[in-house]
Amino acid sequence: MKVFIVYAHPEQNSFNAAMKNLAVETLTGAGHQVQISDLYTMKFNPIADYYDFMERKNSEFLSLSAEQMNSSIHKRFAEEIQQEQDKVLWADLILFQFPVWWFSMPAIMKGWVDRVFAYGFAYGHIDGVPQNLSGRKAICIMTTGASEESYSLKGQKGPIRDWIKHIEVGMLEYSHIKVLNPFVVYQPEYISNEQRISYLDRYKNYLLDLEAM
Amino acid sequence: MKVFIVYAHPEQNSFNAAMKNLAVETLTGAGHQVQISDLYTMKFNPIADYYDFMERKNSEFLSLSAEQMNSSIHKRFAEEIQQEQDKVLWADLILFQFPVWWFSMPAIMKGWVDRVFAYGFAYGHIDGVPQNLSGRKAICIMTTGASEESYSLKGQKGPIRDWIKHIEVGMLEYSHIKVLNPFVVYQPEYISNEQRISYLDRYKNYLLDLEAM
Repeated sequence: MKVFIVYAHPEQNSFNAAMKNLAVETLTGAGHQVQISDLYTMKFNPIADYYDFMERKNSEFLSLSAEQMNSSIHKRFAEEIQQEQDKVLWADLILFQFPVWWFSMPAIMKGWVDRVFAYGFAYGHIDGVPQNLSGRKAICIMTTGASEESYSLKGQKGPIRDWIKHIEVGMLEYSHIKVLNPFVVYQPEYISNEQRISYLDRYKNYLLDLEAM
Repeated sequence: MKVFIVYAHPEQNSFNAAMKNLAVETLTGAGHQVQISDLYTMKFNPIADYYDFMERKNSEFLSLSAEQMNSSIHKRFAEEIQQEQDKVLWADLILFQFPVWWFSMPAIMKGWVDRVFAYGFAYGHIDGVPQNLSGRKAICIMTTGASEESYSLKGQKGPIRDWIKHIEVGMLEYSHIKVLNPFVVYQPEYISNEQRISYLDRYKNYLLDLEAM
């Protein structure tokens, strides 16, 4: 299986980083191919703008949707976007791994979606032919600052999947990607080392079971 | 009334820009004070990282929440964050104006929230005293790429407020800001000039009625 990990965390020694490293090791060890976009390390620019396009359909007025469609048709995206789109097309499975910030993904990853999941690439039609990312699966791998209890059905916040509907349904299913159950680590910052190790064990087994999903 | 407009759109001649300019003109004309953060023009950096803090509690390991709390206590945020927090504290009403991208705000605005609505500033406790932004109101002023019909109750997407719950409830109400009904312009890119002018008229009246809300 070809697995693409899109990863965002600013600290190289974080629990998130440990999970990311474990995923690369475990998946590679199991014979899968892995590519990774470590957005902080890449200093990925999350701000969609005119420089997303090597050529403009209209250089006087910037309509992102019109320019995205034009670049999808004529393959004129900026290289940093094209490279990410190539990884998406290559992948059977995409893991989005991030700490939940404000009930969503960090801005650096939101901007990756804004720029890479372009009109004419992730959705829309070209010459009547639907463009989407069907045939792929995706999973949100998340860490939280709040407790599992607060994200429970009757907790203060309620179920985490209700909050990330704009990601799982809005971004991924909208692009015809099949979304699998997320893997959530609650409060890695506040739990014991034993609990952290237990989470890593569970994550390893989860990754080894992926093929069957 | 003191109104703070947080605005994100990459095109200076867009319909969004026209709405932003109209808001400044109308609100100022009605005797309100207005401050604006035009995130694209400011080239606001949306990536939360170590440089958010003038001083670190722990320079070896970056925990954003721990450093945000430390900077909240000791007033040690980087100047670009402090300036935005000052505008938030100054404001009675905050208008978040943006095009809806992927059922959320553009990354440049998400990063503004990640960095400015810090732990110890927008939520959390310091010495047992709750920190939040109560006493303020906020409104999402949005444009969409999809039609009003698709965002209707039985439309393809369903009601837009369900999608932006992570913004209105997750980011704003969580920070004890009172959220007023959003103002939504559907598909400004695809409607007639007359319809655009009609939307601007409605927006002007909406702004003039704000005091009563």
